[in-house]
Amino acid sequence: MIRAAIIGASGYTGGELIRLLSHHPDIEIKVITSRKNKGMSVSDVFPHLTGYLDITFEEPDYEKISKRVDTVFVALPHKSAMEAVSIFAPDIPVVDLSADFRFENIETYEAWYTKHSSPELLDISVYGLPEIYRENIREAKIIGNPGCYPTGAILGLYPLIKEKIIKESGIIIDSKSGLSGAGRNQSTSNLFTEISESTSPYNVGTHRHSPEIEEKLCAIAKSKVNITFTPHLVPMSRGILSTIYAERSGEFSTKDILEVFGDIYKDEPFVRILPEGKNPNTAWVRGSNFIDIGAVSLRSTDRLVVMTAIDNLVKGASGQAIQNMNIILGFPEDAGLSTIPLFP
Amino acid sequence: MIRAAIIGASGYTGGELIRLLSHHPDIEIKVITSRKNKGMSVSDVFPHLTGYLDITFEEPDYEKISKRVDTVFVALPHKSAMEAVSIFAPDIPVVDLSADFRFENIETYEAWYTKHSSPELLDISVYGLPEIYRENIREAKIIGNPGCYPTGAILGLYPLIKEKIIKESGIIIDSKSGLSGAGRNQSTSNLFTEISESTSPYNVGTHRHSPEIEEKLCAIAKSKVNITFTPHLVPMSRGILSTIYAERSGEFSTKDILEVFGDIYKDEPFVRILPEGKNPNTAWVRGSNFIDIGAVSLRSTDRLVVMTAIDNLVKGASGQAIQNMNIILGFPEDAGLSTIPLFP
Amino acid sequence: MIRAAIIGASGYTGGELIRLLSHHPDIEIKVITSRKNKGMSVSDVFPHLTGYLDITFEEPDYEKISKRVDTVFVALPHKSAMEAVSIFAPDIPVVDLSADFRFENIETYEAWYTKHSSPELLDISVYGLPEIYRENIREAKIIGNPGCYPTGAILGLYPLIKEKIIKESGIIIDSKSGLSGAGRNQSTSNLFTEISESTSPYNVGTHRHSPEIEEKLCAIAKSKVNITFTPHLVPMSRGILSTIYAERSGEFSTKDILEVFGDIYKDEPFVRILPEGKNPNTAWVRGSNFIDIGAVSLRSTDRLVVMTAIDNLVKGASGQAIQNMNIILGFPEDAGLSTIPLFP
Amino acid sequence: MIRAAIIGASGYTGGELIRLLSHHPDIEIKVITSRKNKGMSVSDVFPHLTGYLDITFEEPDYEKISKRVDTVFVALPHKSAMEAVSIFAPDIPVVDLSADFRFENIETYEAWYTKHSSPELLDISVYGLPEIYRENIREAKIIGNPGCYPTGAILGLYPLIKEKIIKESGIIIDSKSGLSGAGRNQSTSNLFTEISESTSPYNVGTHRHSPEIEEKLCAIAKSKVNITFTPHLVPMSRGILSTIYAERSGEFSTKDILEVFGDIYKDEPFVRILPEGKNPNTAWVRGSNFIDIGAVSLRSTDRLVVMTAIDNLVKGASGQAIQNMNIILGFPEDAGLSTIPLFP
Repeated sequence: MIRAAIIGASGYTGGELIRLLSHHPDIEIKVITSRKNKGMSVSDVFPHLTGYLDITFEEPDYEKISKRVDTVFVALPHKSAMEAVSIFAPDIPVVDLSADFRFENIETYEAWYTKHSSPELLDISVYGLPEIYRENIREAKIIGNPGCYPTGAILGLYPLIKEKIIKESGIIIDSKSGLSGAGRNQSTSNLFTEISESTSPYNVGTHRHSPEIEEKLCAIAKSKVNITFTPHLVPMSRGILSTIYAERSGEFSTKDILEVFGDIYKDEPFVRILPEGKNPNTAWVRGSNFIDIGAVSLRSTDRLVVMTAIDNLVKGASGQAIQNMNIILGFPEDAGLSTIPLFP
Repeated sequence: MIRAAIIGASGYTGGELIRLLSHHPDIEIKVITSRKNKGMSVSDVFPHLTGYLDITFEEPDYEKISKRVDTVFVALPHKSAMEAVSIFAPDIPVVDLSADFRFENIETYEAWYTKHSSPELLDISVYGLPEIYRENIREAKIIGNPGCYPTGAILGLYPLIKEKIIKESGIIIDSKSGLSGAGRNQSTSNLFTEISESTSPYNVGTHRHSPEIEEKLCAIAKSKVNITFTPHLVPMSRGILSTIYAERSGEFSTKDILEVFGDIYKDEPFVRILPEGKNPNTAWVRGSNFIDIGAVSLRSTDRLVVMTAIDNLVKGASGQAIQNMNIILGFPEDAGLSTIPLFP
Repeated sequence: MIRAAIIGASGYTGGELIRLLSHHPDIEIKVITSRKNKGMSVSDVFPHLTGYLDITFEEPDYEKISKRVDTVFVALPHKSAMEAVSIFAPDIPVVDLSADFRFENIETYEAWYTKHSSPELLDISVYGLPEIYRENIREAKIIGNPGCYPTGAILGLYPLIKEKIIKESGIIIDSKSGLSGAGRNQSTSNLFTEISESTSPYNVGTHRHSPEIEEKLCAIAKSKVNITFTPHLVPMSRGILSTIYAERSGEFSTKDILEVFGDIYKDEPFVRILPEGKNPNTAWVRGSNFIDIGAVSLRSTDRLVVMTAIDNLVKGASGQAIQNMNIILGFPEDAGLSTIPLFP
Repeated sequence: MIRAAIIGASGYTGGELIRLLSHHPDIEIKVITSRKNKGMSVSDVFPHLTGYLDITFEEPDYEKISKRVDTVFVALPHKSAMEAVSIFAPDIPVVDLSADFRFENIETYEAWYTKHSSPELLDISVYGLPEIYRENIREAKIIGNPGCYPTGAILGLYPLIKEKIIKESGIIIDSKSGLSGAGRNQSTSNLFTEISESTSPYNVGTHRHSPEIEEKLCAIAKSKVNITFTPHLVPMSRGILSTIYAERSGEFSTKDILEVFGDIYKDEPFVRILPEGKNPNTAWVRGSNFIDIGAVSLRSTDRLVVMTAIDNLVKGASGQAIQNMNIILGFPEDAGLSTIPLFP
């Protein structure tokens, strides 16, 4: 059994890593850390996980932890994350769920986040979107696990840009997210009473997932790609529905477009292309590592609409982290990721 | 007191007409009809309204009703609506909440809905968006009360098109609606269990509010305006948040854009322009006749984003209907519309 | 116009006082205080109230405020509340929404809360449940505005105890509350993500509303009344549904019981007794000052079930506070309280 | 592999049977039936299950189906259920999720439901609550799978009655249920708009789960047990929280009571007894076959409170059905039931 540590395990992504790895046939959680909850049991922090993992949260002493485990998941905020990663990597493979290793261009990272403390590690890190970068992931020492919004956006645009179905300017991504993406922290604005019956955009034109999406799309297009990205909060716990608008580069019907998606993703275990006339729904992927994708080529304009649905905590975070780790460690890619969506 | 009838009063818009008119100083509800619920009391159908209106639902006998009332609200599905309207109009002023009198171009109506049975009445009908058509409404005999999505979309675009702030092609309207827009009818797909934790687009590229929006925007622009409109259902009861993307026609800052809105809507009792940095939220308008509008001019692209929030049952339906009737009857425009938004 | 101050106006009950008083024909809000939000406008703190009250939150300087207003609503936590009340009373009539003036027995208060700093004021204070204590309220200088749970529980039991329909031991009150009762404070446990899909009891056997309910029921019964009270949180914003179980003292049918309720509450403007076969629902009273009451006399046992529904922020807090103030000031009891329930 | 049929598989319990059995190592679904959806694929009816089961719904021809499968789950309404069961049993083991085989006393069944068409089969049927009747289930041919409310109520009372901790009269069960218990049928009253912000009791004193609970408790007590049961709907999809009130038969502390529960359920794979001071929460068991149980012995009265939480679709229906089938077929009791609760 591979021994794993989860650094910063008391948030929602930490809880999901524990939930999913509890079913993993080849990985065993040996260490979970939390400054705030050290000494507490898993069931104190996550009552739903009572009975599944009989260890306590410990203080994050990375040096000592590095001697006790074979692999590490880092679920810390950015900045704290790269400090942790630098202790474990490159000897121990690390999946980092923060933004610290997602960017190839360090200037972009530093413009949107903070000064990078381990720029040398960027060379051995890979952006962890398996459907696009699987071969690089296999050789990586550090995975920059994608943001939740970028996962849904990039996988919805990749085939269209790769196959030059759409023009590279004027792409609009309108995303609707559940609240778990906002984390498990003290807050007034995310109280039930504030969120129920509320739909609202936030960080319009300034969300830090914009440059992440743009960098990856530019690399796919091998040219400048310009996007407009608007995130919204809608009153649900899990899920991101991204509605993507782009200008067609030629005459492509809905059928044509769905065939391109079907073709490119045909061997992907976690991508489900919906048949013509069906639209994705966050409720159909909840709790699972799936991304559901639908598309419509509009008749009245020269645009198409692509819609993707993910569970932001699974394919948008912890599930994808495990998928990446499976690739690195040579396990079946779906090990530990067999949860069937829970509906209703 | 003006005596009013509500035809088809047992749905959500009917309930809202009763709720709002119960506070109207000059209009008294004399007749409510419902084929399905005839003979039932208001409190049987709307327990929340217990104590406010002591009449029973009656069979819709339009001829007889026309002798007992001075004004009529028609809250029937399209087709049934125009049949009812044709009995009352032009002698009795009618606000029709269906689509039957919303279109100037009868071919558009017939292409998207059904054959029009009273084309001659279209000449005396006016599209009931007071912020744009107030003067015409004053003289109208029939009001085609706007659709819920068009209300939020057109009011968000009107100043920009009028003042030529944006280009007329490539407008995208991405709307998120609560479930009350789907009505109070037997349904499996709108069960609580199906909707909770669900966000999903529907009628992508084919929603009948698209041609309604386009016809009105074309009239404002006096040229062809082409839109892409995608409605979504999100798990809340009331509210529509519309996120509108358009290409700027020149250099306009967020401040410039908000000034244009502020200027054009400065005397409007139900339009609230949010200050720079604030985004509208459906929770802030719930139960009221307000439309809240925010805007951002994006720095990284040549686009701007306008966001509008309404309560679909009030400004998007029954409240606007009363606003229109107040204009026709010469009452203060906000009579009966004083409900302050209910939050949380 | 009577000039009012709201002390501690930035929470949900403060927001509701502003909303409701904005419609009051005879009371005008002159002062709103908030240590945390001083200097902010109403629309900064309550965007839904934008346009209704053009003053800013100020530092609570009670001495100065007492010279500028004629009446005061105190919406502070207990302890801070009695300190504020002691400055205003008895010269200025005060409705205190905290627990500080709810108890006749100071030992009970001090056992469950804290040492009382103004015991002498208890003599001029009255428990503000108008349906029972209207005459005393008329003469009071200080109103101890009832707790949200006690309002629903006591009004559901008062006629039964008064008319000796039930035995005084073995009363069980099982209450289900929305989240607004938990306030608008930073919190992890009341996040949308924690509450959605969650129903759970809390403070079982130890909630501080138990002694409040017991003291009032004992006074009504003029003997010892013993209750078991269990509050629960259910995933909604507003509303308390209390299901009350008691042993019948004789043969009383459902009809008999409803007649007793109808008789005792026949002149009450805010009590709605439901007909046999109908059960109350929090959705039917939302936003209003109503209490809806239903009852069933069980055939298979010697018990009856009474069910009451209120909006915890209105009849359970701010609405009742205004009702009390109307009585003190000699205004119509429903002034400012005309909001019709908002459904859906 | 054991071949299974699910009769009436298009409702929520059908969907859950498919979801859970898809992970079962020894049972394979061969037949799913639905009159309404015959010919449709699993993904047409349950988009979340896309990719998990490649068969279509077929017309229920029980004779033919009986030749193709080794075991049957019947998820039909009562009456239709017993007709189906009578074709398969006793040759093929059947778990029936309806009420048709839950009662020992046929008169009780017929008084509350309908005339029983196969009374002779009652002798070979067993009530499927494994924690109490495991040994009988092992030998049974037909399982009457318990109702959702009875599961939570009986397991919360069994140890207390068995060990004579409580008196047998005056037991009150106040249950709060999510909407999935109401099924996936066309409905107005269960629309999202009707349920959101709504908490309400229903079938007060007349719910058909009352006699089911009473019959089983009487058998445990070997004497007359009389209960008062009130079900409520609260705005969530899954989960039942039952708050149970009973009179102590002597001096028992909370610790004493929890020890009794711990002792009796110590080997149960799906019962989690919460430590003193923790209360169960429907969110902690969602999607899983767990029942979480907490208890408080009240100091101020002679009563105790037991609280149980289940997922009504899993432990309250489909999960328990599989647990029963595992016992009959000699499989590990938790085969196919490993889903960890999904939170948030």
